[in-house]
Amino acid sequence: MSGENAGPAASASKPALRVGMVGYSFMGAMHSHAWRTAPRFFDLPMRPELAVLAGRNKSAVETAAEKMGWRDTETDWRALVERDDVDLIDICTPGDTHAEIAIAALAAGKHVLCEKPLANSVEEAGHMAAAAKAAEAKGVFAMCGFSYRRTPALTLARRLVQQGRIGTIRHIRAQYLQDWLSSESAPLTWRLDKSKSGSGALGDIGAHSIDAAQYVSGLPIVSVSGLLQTFVHERPVGGTLVGLGGAGASDGAKGPVTVDDAAIFTTRFDGGAVGVFEATRFALGRKNSMRLEINGSLGSLAFDFENMNSLEFYDGAEPPETAGFRTINVTEPEHPYTGNWWPAGHGLGYEHGFTHQVVDLVNAISAGSTPSPSFAEALQVQKILHAVEQSAEAESVWQHV
Amino acid sequence: MSGENAGPAASASKPALRVGMVGYSFMGAMHSHAWRTAPRFFDLPMRPELAVLAGRNKSAVETAAEKMGWRDTETDWRALVERDDVDLIDICTPGDTHAEIAIAALAAGKHVLCEKPLANSVEEAGHMAAAAKAAEAKGVFAMCGFSYRRTPALTLARRLVQQGRIGTIRHIRAQYLQDWLSSESAPLTWRLDKSKSGSGALGDIGAHSIDAAQYVSGLPIVSVSGLLQTFVHERPVGGTLVGLGGAGASDGAKGPVTVDDAAIFTTRFDGGAVGVFEATRFALGRKNSMRLEINGSLGSLAFDFENMNSLEFYDGAEPPETAGFRTINVTEPEHPYTGNWWPAGHGLGYEHGFTHQVVDLVNAISAGSTPSPSFAEALQVQKILHAVEQSAEAESVWQHV
Amino acid sequence: MSGENAGPAASASKPALRVGMVGYSFMGAMHSHAWRTAPRFFDLPMRPELAVLAGRNKSAVETAAEKMGWRDTETDWRALVERDDVDLIDICTPGDTHAEIAIAALAAGKHVLCEKPLANSVEEAGHMAAAAKAAEAKGVFAMCGFSYRRTPALTLARRLVQQGRIGTIRHIRAQYLQDWLSSESAPLTWRLDKSKSGSGALGDIGAHSIDAAQYVSGLPIVSVSGLLQTFVHERPVGGTLVGLGGAGASDGAKGPVTVDDAAIFTTRFDGGAVGVFEATRFALGRKNSMRLEINGSLGSLAFDFENMNSLEFYDGAEPPETAGFRTINVTEPEHPYTGNWWPAGHGLGYEHGFTHQVVDLVNAISAGSTPSPSFAEALQVQKILHAVEQSAEAESVWQHV
Amino acid sequence: MSGENAGPAASASKPALRVGMVGYSFMGAMHSHAWRTAPRFFDLPMRPELAVLAGRNKSAVETAAEKMGWRDTETDWRALVERDDVDLIDICTPGDTHAEIAIAALAAGKHVLCEKPLANSVEEAGHMAAAAKAAEAKGVFAMCGFSYRRTPALTLARRLVQQGRIGTIRHIRAQYLQDWLSSESAPLTWRLDKSKSGSGALGDIGAHSIDAAQYVSGLPIVSVSGLLQTFVHERPVGGTLVGLGGAGASDGAKGPVTVDDAAIFTTRFDGGAVGVFEATRFALGRKNSMRLEINGSLGSLAFDFENMNSLEFYDGAEPPETAGFRTINVTEPEHPYTGNWWPAGHGLGYEHGFTHQVVDLVNAISAGSTPSPSFAEALQVQKILHAVEQSAEAESVWQHV
Repeated sequence: MSGENAGPAASASKPALRVGMVGYSFMGAMHSHAWRTAPRFFDLPMRPELAVLAGRNKSAVETAAEKMGWRDTETDWRALVERDDVDLIDICTPGDTHAEIAIAALAAGKHVLCEKPLANSVEEAGHMAAAAKAAEAKGVFAMCGFSYRRTPALTLARRLVQQGRIGTIRHIRAQYLQDWLSSESAPLTWRLDKSKSGSGALGDIGAHSIDAAQYVSGLPIVSVSGLLQTFVHERPVGGTLVGLGGAGASDGAKGPVTVDDAAIFTTRFDGGAVGVFEATRFALGRKNSMRLEINGSLGSLAFDFENMNSLEFYDGAEPPETAGFRTINVTEPEHPYTGNWWPAGHGLGYEHGFTHQVVDLVNAISAGSTPSPSFAEALQVQKILHAVEQSAEAESVWQHV
Repeated sequence: MSGENAGPAASASKPALRVGMVGYSFMGAMHSHAWRTAPRFFDLPMRPELAVLAGRNKSAVETAAEKMGWRDTETDWRALVERDDVDLIDICTPGDTHAEIAIAALAAGKHVLCEKPLANSVEEAGHMAAAAKAAEAKGVFAMCGFSYRRTPALTLARRLVQQGRIGTIRHIRAQYLQDWLSSESAPLTWRLDKSKSGSGALGDIGAHSIDAAQYVSGLPIVSVSGLLQTFVHERPVGGTLVGLGGAGASDGAKGPVTVDDAAIFTTRFDGGAVGVFEATRFALGRKNSMRLEINGSLGSLAFDFENMNSLEFYDGAEPPETAGFRTINVTEPEHPYTGNWWPAGHGLGYEHGFTHQVVDLVNAISAGSTPSPSFAEALQVQKILHAVEQSAEAESVWQHV
Repeated sequence: MSGENAGPAASASKPALRVGMVGYSFMGAMHSHAWRTAPRFFDLPMRPELAVLAGRNKSAVETAAEKMGWRDTETDWRALVERDDVDLIDICTPGDTHAEIAIAALAAGKHVLCEKPLANSVEEAGHMAAAAKAAEAKGVFAMCGFSYRRTPALTLARRLVQQGRIGTIRHIRAQYLQDWLSSESAPLTWRLDKSKSGSGALGDIGAHSIDAAQYVSGLPIVSVSGLLQTFVHERPVGGTLVGLGGAGASDGAKGPVTVDDAAIFTTRFDGGAVGVFEATRFALGRKNSMRLEINGSLGSLAFDFENMNSLEFYDGAEPPETAGFRTINVTEPEHPYTGNWWPAGHGLGYEHGFTHQVVDLVNAISAGSTPSPSFAEALQVQKILHAVEQSAEAESVWQHV
Repeated sequence: MSGENAGPAASASKPALRVGMVGYSFMGAMHSHAWRTAPRFFDLPMRPELAVLAGRNKSAVETAAEKMGWRDTETDWRALVERDDVDLIDICTPGDTHAEIAIAALAAGKHVLCEKPLANSVEEAGHMAAAAKAAEAKGVFAMCGFSYRRTPALTLARRLVQQGRIGTIRHIRAQYLQDWLSSESAPLTWRLDKSKSGSGALGDIGAHSIDAAQYVSGLPIVSVSGLLQTFVHERPVGGTLVGLGGAGASDGAKGPVTVDDAAIFTTRFDGGAVGVFEATRFALGRKNSMRLEINGSLGSLAFDFENMNSLEFYDGAEPPETAGFRTINVTEPEHPYTGNWWPAGHGLGYEHGFTHQVVDLVNAISAGSTPSPSFAEALQVQKILHAVEQSAEAESVWQHV
């Protein structure tokens, strides 16, 4: 299943970036595709190689490696991070393993790309950020995978804010609505186990909203008041859920859901804007509706990932007669990332944010600059998640981040 | 400017319902139109008459009466409520005057239609509800004007909930987004003066969202956690704002804004649903975006008043292959109210909710049944508004209603 | 059922405009409402009065007169047009009667408002236009009721074209999609009888699209190539269709459909633009989707009556980065007609176009200027309808208008 | 730039499918990506290899091969089709070269994937279809690349038609709206040269609409009446247009546009449905709006490629109270193709239709069954294009296909 060969000259002259990846489920497949695809459309300063895939089950990891196109495998991530022929560790495992792997990899002099949320606790995230800082002094870099910000429409949104088109921001409302837990018979998976996932909708999807809101607005959240809600407290054990983990057939046994089904929180941003966030897996009919809406003194923005190729922009400078939210098809050569793909108007999909993530990471590593979001940035998101949990436990009283 | 004459037979046999109205600004014009229009399209059991219009300024009230089609005028509402030739008092004045007028009218044996919010305080609203209860024993009825629930799409939404199509409700999100205060140069009006209006976005538009959410879901709010925000603390005195009050040219002087510009609150509903509410006049580009979204175990609903003739409905009973939010054009003979108007597909506007309000009120009075929303229902909304204010003053800690 | 009284002074000083109306079905109810409502919101130079309603069935016309608020009735339109106490004849009957009534009314010195299409043939329409021209010399005016052009969004669209915002127009696509004949069991009504209605979808709704396209673009159609299609050739006799005519219960008998169910035609406009028109009553799920889309060298417009309060506008002068179709909420004081109604953002409905029609007609009569669309303009539409029929009979070969 | 290695066991046991591609512009890049990606997500019966890329310019083709991941290159397509180590020829060149290459490849025993439109004339297409038929007798297969039908939403649309959910089809309206020629200064490219491209919007994008309409409806077009329009007759020579050909800077010289800028045609389908097609590159603001709308006796469908992850479906079996066009997010495991990609709700892009095309082609070749659309099917599309041209030259008189 090869067929893709490097040409002789140009690419050979570029340094290789040999990737070792841990985990090969949904995110593993996605990252593999991104590493494979990025150099075909973007002129990268390094040559990414899908070098080694690590997983505990030898047979499963070998099958995955063949399917996804990895050259070699390991069954112990510790062996992976020690290999001489690997330059970067890409962590696609559940959150409870992030800290240990990332810190070991950085200590071994490997660059790190770590899926979000950075960790399952502020403490772990803090250690990771410290490790990243120490590594950076040696030219080793770490990035956290908040891929949504690489959706061209959201990158454009940030650009418009930076250009001053929105003015002083007053309102940010962010919703991340999914529905895959609406049914009480949806099975228990690791994502519903606090010890594995850290939290439920809050960390899994709310974290994306937090990163996107701060990224687009350029404003950090300074305090939060929150509410966590679990609607269904027990679920069948052993069932499968397509694409999102869970394994084997259910025998009627049930196990406890130990995370939130929904998280709702209001926030204050530095500079006076107020925010409302909602993350839920119970919004029946919404499949992946990651919405962001920003109202400023000069303009407004609105985005919904279910129409991810467009951005709504209201320009308050327009005369009232012709003012209105315009739907920008973010598919033009003038837009972020899109010019490297297809001609105008030919939309991208969910996966392309991950390819853009690889592009930005490789460029940063090559340039010797800190990739963004850095572990320090991801730590701040972790602190916000923690503050929401604290507020939820304290009658929603405001918590400083 | 007459021309509209009653035919001899049928209508003459119906009892008259002689209306006396106080106030003749935006809401006065709207109510006048509703009283005038309702009997032309609905077969009412009584004949509404636009009898007497009251206002303090003699010349202004006479001009308004002629423009709006009222037979007579008064310059003192106290005189109005004592007139023998008036059966119902329609109160379209700012909130600080509601209690006194309504209580006097009820005491004088007049039915009352009172604009929302019912009053500027729970105390006043409580007195009004008590007066309404006492009057009802004498066959005199009172209703509060939460007109949005008479938008056919929202009435249909309630019907679907009642039919069980939504199942157990988990999420309610309600946003009422306007932008007429986005500019710092928008003038100070009575709506920004707490002594007149009671509150800002919270009571003016948030109250509509509360009524609509409770009406459609059939679930009362039991507790709230809230935040009030004022973005612009001083505004020009004496400027005018089309249609919403304010008078005369500004001379550069500024006065204090004493109400909230935006209100954000989370709620718990009886039965376990959680809600998120947002009311603001700073959502630049949103003119009258009164949105309501409900997610249940069996279905979901979504509505935006900017497309008021349609309702989004997701039927979870549909197989996944063909499931999706459907846009119901709520303009068919099968839908609430619409069959009395035009053929299928010919949409209605903002004003028609007020006509439907008149229809429902006249039917209730004629039937001797309590109109809804009653003053008791409106008092409960007032208590919610108050609880939001209390929570906002107490670090957003939850308040029981 | 009166209650609406003229004030003493101002309105008394205005000349009355005593209306006599023929027909009291769907369009009659609509026109009545428009005559009643216009003076309440617009400062008209004359006082419209709902004077006399004419219909053949004495009992039915009296019931209708009471319901709709007419002062007097006639059972013969000939008597109506001769009455001294009527100034204007409003014709709301099927198309086969338009010519006779209108010509008689004009001859009797009455202004005329005639529903569209102007007539059932070019010949009749020609006589009417000639009569209107002759009457105008005596200060008597005639207008044809193409009410859609008074939808604020379409009036705004025309304004943008006139301002040059669209540039040279290349494409016009107009669709009028309804579905009330989709079912084969929908009953036969006068609208399906060529002798009464002249044509089917072509004249009933296609005529609206033609008027709107020419009105908004400012360009006359110069040639057409067309196709007429009848999908269902027989329908039950005697059934009823809510709001659109038909009477009595069906006994299983069927009668022939003698008009087109759908009309499709391409057009050339003066100046080089090309058009595509489609009118059908078989677009299942589309209730009243009257769409218009215009592409020019500098901008584009799109409209759908199912969202009648908004207009889509693409401004080609915008840089590509932020260009996009904007949704203008045509509900602001700066927009055509809307400032006379409610505050910003409070949408109008189908009926308001008819009120605006009354406003424009009364203003034109008072000013002594030709109302638009004049009978001459409506004759040109009739010629286009005729050319479509001719082309359809001649293998769709192009016909000059 | 390798990194992607085949695993040892499973894939080695599959037969290789060694691809040789001619052309490496927009379509070449797209096809390369599809060949590379398909086996990573779909369980194919053969192992595609990106074997040889052919192009006339040695240096350019070598650069492209390296960028796109091809193992070897040729500078003469004739050499390519004779190579022993190539199993399939993928033709991504302008239409004037399709026939010669395809016929030679088939004669050499190579499978063929040929971009659309199949050829620049019915005569050429006829020869190609005959060659394909002859080859098929020897187990050699040919397919034409109408990739849009592999958009999951359109594949689902076809499935709903086949299930009878739409009933008897009455209306099909298909628009393909782009705007890249709106500006008169857009440069002359090979796509505007009739000798290279055969036609303009008609064959380039109208052909897609024809294939999609016939594919989804299952109904062949039997006659057409058409119009071709060129708005801008001369354009600058030598300019570049991002992504769509054209080379070098312009010196002010102009050359003639010899193709249509827009094509409009009405059609009759077998069985009685009528269609309206419009293809244009002058719909300012529409980037890649490939729309398809179908109205039947039981249901309706609507699609716009600018929201390619959703399909609108109106189910006429639904009671009127809750009937409405539903927006199906075609991103669920139950939908065509999507289950092989990401979890529910994570949308795809333009490119995925090409990957699905590879999947379907490889499966057909492996199964020894005729891939669809076959050259015979593509020939029928070519005949329709020709009939449109004939009708346009004959005053739009109807032409049988």
